[in-house]
Order: sequence, then structure tokens, then C-alpha cells
Amino acid sequence: MYPLEDGAFAPINHWYVAAWTSEISRTPLERVILDHPVVLYRKEDGGFAALAGFCPHRGFPLAKGALIGDDIECPYHGLRFAPDGACTLVPSQDTVPAACRLRSYPVAERWQWLWIWVGDPALADEALIPDHLAARLTDPEYRSAGGNYYEVPGRYMLMHDNLLDLNHVPFLHRNTFGGDGGGAIQLPEVTAGDGHVICTFTQPNIECPPFLCALLGYSGPVSRKYTSYFHAPCLHVILDSIEKLDPATGQTAPLGNLLHIHAVTPATHDTAHYFQGEGQNFSHSEPCLSEAFRSSEMVRAALDEDMSATRLIERSIKVHQGRLPEILLKADKAAVLGRRIIQAMIDAEAEQA
Amino acid sequence: MYPLEDGAFAPINHWYVAAWTSEISRTPLERVILDHPVVLYRKEDGGFAALAGFCPHRGFPLAKGALIGDDIECPYHGLRFAPDGACTLVPSQDTVPAACRLRSYPVAERWQWLWIWVGDPALADEALIPDHLAARLTDPEYRSAGGNYYEVPGRYMLMHDNLLDLNHVPFLHRNTFGGDGGGAIQLPEVTAGDGHVICTFTQPNIECPPFLCALLGYSGPVSRKYTSYFHAPCLHVILDSIEKLDPATGQTAPLGNLLHIHAVTPATHDTAHYFQGEGQNFSHSEPCLSEAFRSSEMVRAALDEDMSATRLIERSIKVHQGRLPEILLKADKAAVLGRRIIQAMIDAEAEQA
Amino acid sequence: MYPLEDGAFAPINHWYVAAWTSEISRTPLERVILDHPVVLYRKEDGGFAALAGFCPHRGFPLAKGALIGDDIECPYHGLRFAPDGACTLVPSQDTVPAACRLRSYPVAERWQWLWIWVGDPALADEALIPDHLAARLTDPEYRSAGGNYYEVPGRYMLMHDNLLDLNHVPFLHRNTFGGDGGGAIQLPEVTAGDGHVICTFTQPNIECPPFLCALLGYSGPVSRKYTSYFHAPCLHVILDSIEKLDPATGQTAPLGNLLHIHAVTPATHDTAHYFQGEGQNFSHSEPCLSEAFRSSEMVRAALDEDMSATRLIERSIKVHQGRLPEILLKADKAAVLGRRIIQAMIDAEAEQA
Repeated sequence: MYPLEDGAFAPINHWYVAAWTSEISRTPLERVILDHPVVLYRKEDGGFAALAGFCPHRGFPLAKGALIGDDIECPYHGLRFAPDGACTLVPSQDTVPAACRLRSYPVAERWQWLWIWVGDPALADEALIPDHLAARLTDPEYRSAGGNYYEVPGRYMLMHDNLLDLNHVPFLHRNTFGGDGGGAIQLPEVTAGDGHVICTFTQPNIECPPFLCALLGYSGPVSRKYTSYFHAPCLHVILDSIEKLDPATGQTAPLGNLLHIHAVTPATHDTAHYFQGEGQNFSHSEPCLSEAFRSSEMVRAALDEDMSATRLIERSIKVHQGRLPEILLKADKAAVLGRRIIQAMIDAEAEQA
Repeated sequence: MYPLEDGAFAPINHWYVAAWTSEISRTPLERVILDHPVVLYRKEDGGFAALAGFCPHRGFPLAKGALIGDDIECPYHGLRFAPDGACTLVPSQDTVPAACRLRSYPVAERWQWLWIWVGDPALADEALIPDHLAARLTDPEYRSAGGNYYEVPGRYMLMHDNLLDLNHVPFLHRNTFGGDGGGAIQLPEVTAGDGHVICTFTQPNIECPPFLCALLGYSGPVSRKYTSYFHAPCLHVILDSIEKLDPATGQTAPLGNLLHIHAVTPATHDTAHYFQGEGQNFSHSEPCLSEAFRSSEMVRAALDEDMSATRLIERSIKVHQGRLPEILLKADKAAVLGRRIIQAMIDAEAEQA
Repeated sequence: MYPLEDGAFAPINHWYVAAWTSEISRTPLERVILDHPVVLYRKEDGGFAALAGFCPHRGFPLAKGALIGDDIECPYHGLRFAPDGACTLVPSQDTVPAACRLRSYPVAERWQWLWIWVGDPALADEALIPDHLAARLTDPEYRSAGGNYYEVPGRYMLMHDNLLDLNHVPFLHRNTFGGDGGGAIQLPEVTAGDGHVICTFTQPNIECPPFLCALLGYSGPVSRKYTSYFHAPCLHVILDSIEKLDPATGQTAPLGNLLHIHAVTPATHDTAHYFQGEGQNFSHSEPCLSEAFRSSEMVRAALDEDMSATRLIERSIKVHQGRLPEILLKADKAAVLGRRIIQAMIDAEAEQA
């Protein structure tokens, strides 16, 4: 698989974002996670169930079924399954065959997300989920608003490539974030460690980009620094810090920090799920600035641009029978490090198998 | 092929329903039968022609052509073919090459159906067609109305599975035939013999289901028994017998019998044709009750439910790369016997080949 | 590949029509030529650029990009490429990697066409382009109007088959050119030579077909002769000569010649490009007769019939897993000679490789 080697297309023994918790209700939701069809729904106590998506009897997709208490009913022959996967009813007979059960997937709620583990359940340690407080998503100094969801029309690595090279922003998003607004055209400082990549872009003296002026209630010169944290294999959080600048003296004063929040989950070999949100630390008054920004036409249009790019490159990969040639630039350093981390995760799983 | 073994996906040396005769007119009809593209049309005397569907010259589909007397004209270069497959005209030359002819398929009219044989024509014995009088379709005590046709978005065996396990009715058809109306949730009595399976469901004391009340002009307690006859590999006839019941004494008196008539013909590996009709023995007055029932919104909606289920399970099979796991229940006995009969037919043909 | 043997699906070291020059502007145009995705655009001096269609960095399709002077900018990360394929800018770094360049394809303008060479550029000799003066397209005695373009929903050889057997005209085009109007049902005289096939149809005494009456301003008996020149592997020009006939004496007097102009370029294995125009030598007054005819509803409808036939036969080929059986008729002589010429071109390239 481009841009990874042959073999598994994604590391499976990891936590991935399955859904916004706001997406999960008493109407079952079907979602494919790393080729696993999963049905997600709310239990009566508000908790979550994540079951294999097909009835083991005849393969009917359970997301079409109704909930009866905490059980889900297959619409074809009425079999019922509990959140732990046990079959609780076969209407046409008194006993349930032992083999008639569904796989139940470990899940964990963090921030506004439901994380899922579709790998070996014995390894599903919640401590492996990225620390949401450290990532500021649950930091009380911040208000963060999630809810953007896209079915990505291309393989998940294309989204990681996208998020790990923000030099695309002034070009792909010229008509949304603006040619100069969304990012510097510069080589970031890049460091990588155990399962993460950090990129830092610094713009010591720029005019405050128009879309930030609106958020910050300020226009004029600023010093901007943004730091992108990739917590492989799923989460990206970009800390976007803007300071008011007095160009004469070089003195700066904080205006505020934004969070640009992204999660990417492989669906199939060549499709993915993309979850996006925004946060801010500088105004806690209503209505929530981040919620307004996240749900704005501009952000929607910019994310559409990313989806379009992903679709077009996925098409290119297919035109090239999966072997798209590439030229690596200096700005690809972070993407290459990110690919290596994910490839190493896949390789480690292949060795254990 | 699920749920059959690898190899041919259907037995070929058998009669299958190709079309309702009402579908066949002076406008040619293209229909694929067991991967054979066939063109069907009426001759001037009202008889039927069934020819290979592509012109042998350049492969143009003949169903796009016009009829000239009993011949069909290829729209591309004007070649004409008679109902026996002989080429009767090549406009650009005086003689017809010996090899320039079409395969003509044996057909036979029974009840409102045209049956076809796409296997070895030397074996096409009309005595092998199920006895329509015995099946009551042409029984003068019954009025039977055909005409429902569906292109099934899944392999034909899924329809046989469906028709051989009527325990799906209270669930899949809850919103049409009703949760209790369409069938008992019980294990049928099942017997199988040479090329057939018979299932019997008995409901000795139930309230007459609403859709039957309307047909029978009666509401109250009834004794109901329905017997499903599968004449492999194509025809299902369900005899649905309802008797008025005096619960106090246990005495019964006939109200009437319905026939639920189904034929399933493989089209390609993963699509099929489905023909459906209804019959009744209890009222011969106009307008025809069975015709009204067959063409009703409720039956249409119920058949849509079956098509939807078939499409969803076909999708499940593909998600599982053709190897959908299954759990067999007691209620699957008839479906399993039906599969075995069809597998045996395929195996017998493979041995002869 | 039907109707050719396995191997390459088209000869590559040949000139093909890439586009009408009127299609090429300052908005880049993507077109796939023999599986090569190409982006075409105008330079500021009105000349043409033909570059590989994907950015070498991440595979983004360049036709989505903007022109900056004579350079095209990749919309993803802003890389720029000159018409010779050189990368002139990588915004995020000061130098351009040596390997970061695009393939630039040789092109040549002839008549209203841009011809392209996607094979070995060392062999791209413009003398190999068919002589447009000899073919009358640039003959000052003729006025010729191009501009019809179709994406062919089938492999290119189906269009050559179509154009090399005009006996299809009275049948496929019965409702456009008319049953007798578009062509004789007769065997043409066929000669073939080095890379070309010539067919001649003669109708010494017919009523002037209705669509020609309108063009010639004449109705009555005519002597018509049309000669079809196939310049393999791309160009067909049909010279359609009509003379007024005095049936009593057999004397004839020229009414005029039409040109029916066609170019067929392979796109992918099973799709093609089709370029069509018309010409005439008998009236040079305004408005241009050929332009009116070329852009008429009737020609549009007739070309739609050809596209439909190609789509249907491509479907037949696929139904037959690429091995569509054929019966050859006497009228196929020209098509068979055309296939042999193209097969010989492919074979010669395979030997050199």
C-alpha cells in the first residue's frame, strides 16, 4: 500500500477514534474500522455498545436493526444480541447455540470521542490512548468544539501526509484560509520520538491573518508560532499561538491560542474517517467561538478542499496501479517520519504474528 | 459461491422461468439466464422466440433490434435471424456464411410463465418442468394471478434461503404482513425428497391476521396451516390454508386457501430474477382477489423488503470476500436441505462433464 | 485485447490527435492518451504545452492548477513547472531537486488539431504526421470545420471497425442519415498499402439523399462515389463526391465534394477520444455550410448512435470476458486490413523493445 510497503495497511493493536459521541444514539450506526464492520449504539444508561456489524446467522447488517433495551435485534429473523455480544434470543428455538455470538469491541470515551480497539482485546490498555489533558483537549483553560466528520475518499495515509506538511495550506487553502493566512511557507523544525512527531512553524512578524482577526478581535502585526503534534497512529493536535507584536520594540503580548484538532481512522484499504474540531483558550464567553469557527462555512470549505485533494491523489494512485512515484522535498521530513512510525508499528505486529 | 461450494454457481440442465409471458411482446426483451444473454420476443402467431442475445458478427445486443415478421434485425449492419437461429439476410452479400447463426433456446409455456432451458438442448425434456396442475397453478378450482417481477440484487441462493425459512416473515415483514400476521415463529415440519423440500407450519388457534381478514371477509379465530413446496431449482408454491375456528368446541370450517407463488432464476453469479404471484380458491367473482392482492401496495412493499435483505446480504458476502461465516439454527433445516439438493444437481453435472 | 491479440493495446510510437486546438486555452485540460495522463494548455505566445498530468511530488493532478505565465502551478504545495517540464519553483525550499521534473510531450499543430507523441521522443518525426494538404483538410479549395468531440465509451478499435465498414450507415443511422441516404449497401473496392486502407463505394444512379439536397441546393438523380481513406493509426477522411446525373444520357456534372473527417485516439484500454468534422469544396459563402452541418442536430444524433453502438459492443466484450466471438463477412475486408496494419505496428514495437 502506498506510501507504505505491502502487507497490512494499518497497525491494528492501537486505539482509534470510532465516532463523535454525539453521533451515537439509540439509532444504531454502522462504521467500518480497519475493515471491521462495527455497529455502534447507546445503551439505556447512556453507555456505549460496539458490536460486530453482521448477524452471525445470515450476515444481515445489524445497523438496520432496532434496539430493545440494551439489545440489538437483527431485522431478518429476530435474533437479539447484548452489548457484550451474547445472543439473548433466537425466536424460533428455546436455546441459543454456543457459537452464536457477536464480537464486542473495547471502547473508551475521551473528550467528545469514542475510541475503539479492533485488534487483540487482551492488549486493549486504555493507558495507550493519547493523554487528552496533556493534548489540551480536556484542559479547563481551553474550550474545544468537535463535530466535523468526513468519509475520506482515499487511504488514511494521505490524510496524515496532508496534516504533516502544512506547507499545503497557502496553496490548497488559498481561497479559504488565504494565501498567507493559514501557514508559513517555510521548513518547520521537526522532532520525532516514540510514536509521535512534532513540527514547529514560527512567523515572528506578520500581519494577523484575516480569519484570525475575526476570532481574536484584533488586527495588526503579530508573532505566530504553531506546533503540530502527531500522536500516531490517529491524533493530530495543532497548537496555534498568536501574540500581539510591537514591531518597533519587538515586544509581544499573548492574544490567544487556538487548537486545530484532527483524528484519522482507517476504514478500508482506500477509505478513512476524519474527525475535526477546534479549540481556544482566550474567550470563554457565549456563544462559543470555537464552535462557531468549527461549524463555519470557511472551515467546511477548507475541509472540502482536503477531501478533494485526497480523492484526486487516491485516483492518481489507482491510475499508477498503486505505485505512485514520488519526489521527496525537504518539507516532507515530518511526513516521512510519520510514515516510518506507522510502518514500524505494522512491522512490529507482523513479527508478533 | 456462498452458500454453495466452488464450481458452477447453478445447475444448468434444468428448466427455469425466463419471463412472464405478459412481458414478452413484439418489442424484444433482453434477459440474462445463468450467464446466457438471451433475447425474447413474440412471433407473429403469438409463439415465442428465445435467441442468443448478441449478433454473431460484431456482438451488438439484438434486443435493441426491430422485428421484421418473425425475424429479428441487428441494428448495426442489418443482419436478420429467424426464431430457429438461422441467419436469413446479410444485406451486404448474397450468401450467408454457414457459421453465421444464433443459438436458439428451448422454451415452454406453462401457466403465465415462459420456461427456458439454457443447458444441453438434447436433455430439454418438457416432462422435467414441475407439474403446474399438481402445484395448483393451473388447477381450475384456483384463480392465480402472476406479474410481479424483480431483478434481485444478490445471488439466487439468497432468495431460496429466504423462501425456505419463513421465520423471517414476522421480522423482515413486520411493517407489511405484520409481526404476527405473516407466519408463526415456530419450527416447521420438514421433509425432503427427490428434488423437492416440503415445510409445514401449523397455527391451530390464532386471530385471523389483518391482511387475511380483508381477503377472506372474515375476522375472528382461525386455524391456519401453510405448506411450502420447493420444486428445485426454481419454483416455490406455498399453500396457505385458513379455517374458521370455534375455540369453544375446536370445530373448524374451511374459509379458503391462498397460493403464494415464487420462481427464482439465476441471472449472473450474483444477481437473479424473481417472479411472484398469488392465487386463491375461495372467490371467483370479479374483480380477481388474487390480482388485487398481488398488485397491492402491501405485497409490493413486502417484496421490496426481501430485495433489500438480499442486497444487504450480498454486500455482506462481498465484504467477507465470498466466505461469509454462518451459524445454522434449527429453523434452517429446510434451507440446508434445499442447498444440498441444488449442490447435488451441480455436482451431478460436473461429474458428467 | 479484442479485436487485437494480447500485448500492448495500441502502437505508441505514432502521432495521435490530442485535442482540437480550440479546446486548449489558459485553463488547463486533462486528457489521457494511451494511458498517459497529460495536461494541455496555451502558453502566453499562443503556443502549446503538453506535460505529464501529475505532480511528481505527491501525484496531484496538475490540470486542477493555475497558470502563472507559461508555468503551471500544482494546487497542493505550489510547485511550478515550465512547458519543457522543468520545475521552476519549490516554495518551501531554495533549490529544486534534479529529479523533480515533468515529462514534456512533443506536439504539433496541423489544421485545427494538436497532434501528440507519447512514445519514444527520439522518434517523434513530424514528417510521420499524415499529410493534411493531400488529405484535403488544408486544401484551399475546401472549407473544413472541426470541433465535434466525444469520449468514446469503448476501446478505440471499435471506432476503427465502425469507420471501416460503412455498411452500418443505412442501419445504425437509419433515423439520421436515412435508410438509403448515408451509404450504399454494397461491398466497397478495398485496397491497402503501407499504413493505409482505401475503400471506394460507387452509386452511379440514385436519388440525391435528403440531407445532401439541403447542403447542395439540389434534388434529383445523382451519381455518388465515396472514398474512405484510413491513415493508420488515427485519421479517417472520407471524400464524398456527388455529381448531377441526366439518367437519359448518363451525362454527369459535378455538384460538389464533401469531406467527412474523423480521428480516433486511444485513451485507456477500453476508452478513446473521437474528433469529428466536415468539409466541402462547393460553396465558400457565409455562413460556412460545413460548420452548420458539423454542428447540426442530425450529425450530433448520428454520432450519438455511433457512441451508443460502441458502448454496447464494449459491454458485449466484457460479458464475454474479452473474447467476443466474431463472424467475418465480405464487407469486413477493410476492417480486417485495418486491424492487421495496427497489429503489425504493435508487433513491430514489441520486437524493438
